Amino acid sequence: MIKGIEFSGIASGIKPTGLDLGLVVFQEEMNALTMYTRNRVKAAHILYDRRIDKGPVRALVVNSGCANACTGKEGVGDLAAIASGLAPLINMETREILFASTGVIGRRLPVDKIMSALPRAVKAGKGSGLEDFARAIMTTDTYPKIMREKFKGKKTYNIVGVAKGSGMINPLFATMLAFVFTDFPVSPEAVGRIFTQSVRDSFEHISVDGECSTNDTVMLFTGRGGQEDLEGLGAFTEGLRFVLRGLSMMVVRDGEGATRVARIMVTGAKKKEWAEKIARRISISPLTKTAFFGCDPNWGRIIAASGDAGVPVNPSKVEITLQGEMIVRGGVELPFNEAKMKKLMNRKEISVIVDLNDGKASFDMYTTDLTYDYVKINASYRS
Amino acid sequence: MIKGIEFSGIASGIKPTGLDLGLVVFQEEMNALTMYTRNRVKAAHILYDRRIDKGPVRALVVNSGCANACTGKEGVGDLAAIASGLAPLINMETREILFASTGVIGRRLPVDKIMSALPRAVKAGKGSGLEDFARAIMTTDTYPKIMREKFKGKKTYNIVGVAKGSGMINPLFATMLAFVFTDFPVSPEAVGRIFTQSVRDSFEHISVDGECSTNDTVMLFTGRGGQEDLEGLGAFTEGLRFVLRGLSMMVVRDGEGATRVARIMVTGAKKKEWAEKIARRISISPLTKTAFFGCDPNWGRIIAASGDAGVPVNPSKVEITLQGEMIVRGGVELPFNEAKMKKLMNRKEISVIVDLNDGKASFDMYTTDLTYDYVKINASYRS
Repeated sequence: MIKGIEFSGIASGIKPTGLDLGLVVFQEEMNALTMYTRNRVKAAHILYDRRIDKGPVRALVVNSGCANACTGKEGVGDLAAIASGLAPLINMETREILFASTGVIGRRLPVDKIMSALPRAVKAGKGSGLEDFARAIMTTDTYPKIMREKFKGKKTYNIVGVAKGSGMINPLFATMLAFVFTDFPVSPEAVGRIFTQSVRDSFEHISVDGECSTNDTVMLFTGRGGQEDLEGLGAFTEGLRFVLRGLSMMVVRDGEGATRVARIMVTGAKKKEWAEKIARRISISPLTKTAFFGCDPNWGRIIAASGDAGVPVNPSKVEITLQGEMIVRGGVELPFNEAKMKKLMNRKEISVIVDLNDGKASFDMYTTDLTYDYVKINASYRS
Repeated sequence: MIKGIEFSGIASGIKPTGLDLGLVVFQEEMNALTMYTRNRVKAAHILYDRRIDKGPVRALVVNSGCANACTGKEGVGDLAAIASGLAPLINMETREILFASTGVIGRRLPVDKIMSALPRAVKAGKGSGLEDFARAIMTTDTYPKIMREKFKGKKTYNIVGVAKGSGMINPLFATMLAFVFTDFPVSPEAVGRIFTQSVRDSFEHISVDGECSTNDTVMLFTGRGGQEDLEGLGAFTEGLRFVLRGLSMMVVRDGEGATRVARIMVTGAKKKEWAEKIARRISISPLTKTAFFGCDPNWGRIIAASGDAGVPVNPSKVEITLQGEMIVRGGVELPFNEAKMKKLMNRKEISVIVDLNDGKASFDMYTTDLTYDYVKINASYRS
């Protein structure tokens, strides 16, 4: 835990049952760095937070069960109302409170329910409620996602990260929500690029279903008080990458309906951008993903997806390695034992390497299989 | 039927059971117009046909059960061998024979089996085997896809179209295979643009799973003998569009595992290209497609997909109409009766209109729902 940061998670009635309202109160002012979805349709909390996320932050309110997206000016106004209700309870200014939401698009927040639940949330925060907080922000996640790390600068610092998936998870800012907290005193200027790059290197390498949410948000809260500790910056960077990478892997592993995680590694590309496009295309290919579900070493679907990425591919140079066994060379199949390969594919972790043999650039993506349960969860989620 | 064109379909043993080899023999020389997949990985028949599809054509061989894709030079050589075996049987030149294949990628054609089956295929063609031909080219299709049309020029002409789906069906040349035959005497030059545009207006408006095949092929065979009948060109154009549109609708309706077809109409766009990108993005959105399966009027997923199409969208102007009921205006929900809408969504045909209220351009796409059966079919297809 981090001294001076209080987490809580309570049931406020946004969902029919279960925890749905998370609160973080900072005893000291914090800096907030934020990254938001690239979707052109953005949730109310993004429109709201953007106006104030440059200043010092003292509290964060996160709800599940309602995305508060496509709710117009009213949706933004609802957040202002909640901030006004919360501020006196925690002795802070409304402009020091940030929000994030996840859940169904198009519904307004039940402001009255939330308002009357806030005192309970504040009180709950006096205990150590990190896991409750992590549970309160879950939607179809099957487990809370928390990462902890310590590192040394002038003294020992802590990093705590919390995230939620698990559908609408998409390359190019694939998350839904992730929050990272640290007592490391560092200015937004010193850490801005480190944060951006660490998010790119983690959440932007995962995909569950190729869907980009209206609500995707990653926030980093850093210590604001006292002297900056630039000595610890290297260790902090490593710690932050470890936490974000860990959270992103938890999100993909808990992808909706997923029974396996596949690492798609595209190597030997002339340009990194080409490797990335091919890796992303494979990672959202429903035929490839259903084959993973069926333990089918169906390299034909992988090479077909590679050829459909909108970038040059010379099929006659392509090598494909599945679970460590090279089964395609020069674009044609190498004889392999079907039964053995099927058994190798029947693991929780799938490794796919597509070597274009055309250069030195590479890119990897982590994705899931496409299963009955994905269809089941999403054919009935709203109701 | 068209005089002088003989169709047949037989079981040659490429598949364990069932018809798998289709043959079309033209008594007169025909012109062939072709359109092939945009996938960078192309099946052997495309590489082979491209060398010869400019000259007169006397026969077409189509097989299912094996895509003959990613089979290297050997795969192309296999076709040359089959052409050499077939030519003397039908008294033609090898260079007058075109091929098309569909099925599993990466396997070589069983040339011996096909060679020994060819005499039977030729003999079968003496009867009227159009439906057998249509069945022989099916993979996961549940019914053969045939369209017939008559039109008048200087005399009455016929158009016959045959197609197969039903997975790897994707915008930007979504088909697998379609063949159109006519006794209308017209030069490739006179009909080239009509053909291309008609394919764009039909097969490029459908999607089943967003996957682009290595084998996609559309061919048009027109009469070559006698005087061109330019008088009939208008009626022919109409007839061709009718046949291609009909075939493409059959393909999407028979999409793998599909229980519904949804028409996604994007209107009010500033540019047609933007309307197209949004319509295509919605049509491959797994969350939208699982919602269709669940009869869920989940407009939030539709607007989220719209915002993720990589083109400008002003959410506050968006109107969404589902099954004729406007349920979103100004980007926010209009009150609707949930039970009534769920009932309206429980139909074979879904209509979605997304009005961007930002211009006059529009684009429509036809897509399917995403169901348990899609997963089932594709988790086990190869084995």
